[in-house]
Amino acid sequence: MRQRLWGEALGSFFLFATVVGSGIMAERLAGGNVAVALLGNTIATGAILYVLITMLGPVSGAHFNPAVSLVMRLRGDCCWKGLAATVVVQIGAGVLGVWAAHAMFDMPIWQLSQHSRTGVGQWLGEFIATFGLITTIIGTAKHRPDAVPVSVALYITAAYWFTSSTSFANPAITIARSLSDSFAGIAPVDVPGFIAAQLAGALAAHFMGKRLFPAT
Amino acid sequence: MRQRLWGEALGSFFLFATVVGSGIMAERLAGGNVAVALLGNTIATGAILYVLITMLGPVSGAHFNPAVSLVMRLRGDCCWKGLAATVVVQIGAGVLGVWAAHAMFDMPIWQLSQHSRTGVGQWLGEFIATFGLITTIIGTAKHRPDAVPVSVALYITAAYWFTSSTSFANPAITIARSLSDSFAGIAPVDVPGFIAAQLAGALAAHFMGKRLFPAT
Amino acid sequence: MRQRLWGEALGSFFLFATVVGSGIMAERLAGGNVAVALLGNTIATGAILYVLITMLGPVSGAHFNPAVSLVMRLRGDCCWKGLAATVVVQIGAGVLGVWAAHAMFDMPIWQLSQHSRTGVGQWLGEFIATFGLITTIIGTAKHRPDAVPVSVALYITAAYWFTSSTSFANPAITIARSLSDSFAGIAPVDVPGFIAAQLAGALAAHFMGKRLFPAT
Amino acid sequence: MRQRLWGEALGSFFLFATVVGSGIMAERLAGGNVAVALLGNTIATGAILYVLITMLGPVSGAHFNPAVSLVMRLRGDCCWKGLAATVVVQIGAGVLGVWAAHAMFDMPIWQLSQHSRTGVGQWLGEFIATFGLITTIIGTAKHRPDAVPVSVALYITAAYWFTSSTSFANPAITIARSLSDSFAGIAPVDVPGFIAAQLAGALAAHFMGKRLFPAT
Repeated sequence: MRQRLWGEALGSFFLFATVVGSGIMAERLAGGNVAVALLGNTIATGAILYVLITMLGPVSGAHFNPAVSLVMRLRGDCCWKGLAATVVVQIGAGVLGVWAAHAMFDMPIWQLSQHSRTGVGQWLGEFIATFGLITTIIGTAKHRPDAVPVSVALYITAAYWFTSSTSFANPAITIARSLSDSFAGIAPVDVPGFIAAQLAGALAAHFMGKRLFPAT
Repeated sequence: MRQRLWGEALGSFFLFATVVGSGIMAERLAGGNVAVALLGNTIATGAILYVLITMLGPVSGAHFNPAVSLVMRLRGDCCWKGLAATVVVQIGAGVLGVWAAHAMFDMPIWQLSQHSRTGVGQWLGEFIATFGLITTIIGTAKHRPDAVPVSVALYITAAYWFTSSTSFANPAITIARSLSDSFAGIAPVDVPGFIAAQLAGALAAHFMGKRLFPAT
Repeated sequence: MRQRLWGEALGSFFLFATVVGSGIMAERLAGGNVAVALLGNTIATGAILYVLITMLGPVSGAHFNPAVSLVMRLRGDCCWKGLAATVVVQIGAGVLGVWAAHAMFDMPIWQLSQHSRTGVGQWLGEFIATFGLITTIIGTAKHRPDAVPVSVALYITAAYWFTSSTSFANPAITIARSLSDSFAGIAPVDVPGFIAAQLAGALAAHFMGKRLFPAT
Repeated sequence: MRQRLWGEALGSFFLFATVVGSGIMAERLAGGNVAVALLGNTIATGAILYVLITMLGPVSGAHFNPAVSLVMRLRGDCCWKGLAATVVVQIGAGVLGVWAAHAMFDMPIWQLSQHSRTGVGQWLGEFIATFGLITTIIGTAKHRPDAVPVSVALYITAAYWFTSSTSFANPAITIARSLSDSFAGIAPVDVPGFIAAQLAGALAAHFMGKRLFPAT
């Protein structure tokens, strides 16, 4: 269990630092061309996801995401106490990653986002984004476990572009991104709506997955 | 058969939502730089194709495309009745995916495209695009079946750029894209020409494939 | 041998159509931002290379390039007569691919490039580009043959950017690109200098490869 | 040992030529859009890393980086004398690669960078970048050795964007880039700070790696 928590900590730190750090870099360099900024943000996020899941999958399962850990618990992973510890570590180490990004770019460590992200369209976006992410993990793990790292990385690559919310799809990263007033940020007041939509999408994927990808 | 139709439905929904949704996102952000918009659209489409074919290949064959299902039928897959049901599901679930994209981006659900796509050059583009897609599937499946998901994803990545029509190469997606007045749309009146060229390209690939990649 | 020539024909057609077609598309859409145009051209070329080498490697070796065929002949492949036929097919089918690109984009079929590409810097670029390409093929084929398609695709992806000549690295494609007055073109008068540099780079790689990657 | 040094020489030459050459190309074409320039630089660097590690891993271990060679020595590789020779070759061949890039782009061979890169934020960037690189290599090599080339390539792809320093993460390349007054350059006076941060990050990763990825 201890190894596992260290794995989740290391991965959440680097994942969240990459999402926020590449957003800062992209926004600074893109000179107002937001599509180019999103390209840089997308490529960095997809790339680090592959690396972290490949390296830490055998250590901790490489969730870095409470919605994923919840569904894995529902499918039989360990226990509720383990889930709670995992989620605490994901959020804590992830926030440290966000703060490390701020420090690297000589910004104040403590920030609160003013980036408004709300409304039915974006909630639907988060529902679909998380539904697709969990389905990808469950379905690929069943038929081609070796392909999970690439599949998750490319799913998020696509979802950054096809959802109106740019696919947070992760309650821990939603909380952490509320602490960054930069490209990837989300205003704290908009966090609960996003998390509710994400958990709904995760549960929907869980129930569909039981039928389409039954455990053998 | 039921599993198979669910697989085609899930895949067509996500594929068509990605093509249309990433087109909307790209156009909104790119500020008139169409090449950057096409880059975003390309990366999202290629990425989701890999994910869906990896995950759903073992479930349904992962066609999401009546031209592919037709050629597979000609090569011995199941039956004409199964083909008809598959095509209905691909179109139906795909249209739902397009509508989901509209809903996510707070656009009216019901739209008709005004994007004119016609002329000999574009029909030749669709012929070559579909010819290459079917050849890729047949040839790769014969020699390196594990490489089919990557190959199809990268073929479409290339074909978005080297064909004048940006490579629809899929009758179901052509119909669905006529229902979206956005970056990826096609005016309904131009749909029959595209579909005819696609089917001609698919059949040409089928006949060439019988000689170059004979079933052993 | 006949299968082999068909494989080289199909691959050269699609490779050269992609290089020229994606260049036309990229230039039309990029509105003067040449770096974005080169990004589109790069992604399309790298993607189709992976597809064609994966699919046609088992059929023809997937050279599509007289410099590669020459080095493979020097390493023991078949015979000089087979090499001559292969080169004729690579050039002939490749030119058809360029003409197909012109037709798809409603341009005149017959064109001569006015794009000047000459000088010591660019010749050094072609020497290094071809040296690296042949080394990649020889070295990867020795230790990890399954990785050849990805390696060649990614080598060319890099070489489009790190060489001053954007890495033609292929005498057949150099000839074919002289017949296209578009982004990817090269003035006919500059073709001999490029081909000489390419052949010198290929031979240098052949001799180094004999020492660093000896046939076992 | 001789094979090994030739492998490091070949790889360092191409890696450093790619980093600097693609930076020059990107800057020339991007017309002031620095985010697009960094995209080109990123894609070229990530692509060539995959190619070189795949091809030369079995020959020399494919370090091209004194920080990596140092950690491998600490984990039991050969000897201190071998390390010294390796580092000399990495720097020497890498500088030749930078000079080749200058020659290809018709620039003066001898240059000194005037690009200032300094400050606590960037040093933290180099510390984190190198810590992550070494962790990636150690962790992936333990659990999925076949995935090392992709993982290192994608780690650097991400780190170009999420660190404020664009992730040099390599003392030899830091020295070599001080000899290029171009996009990828670093002023000679700023080199020692970067190298110190890199070595600190490498050692931190070494000690963490002993606990999280113990040699079995």
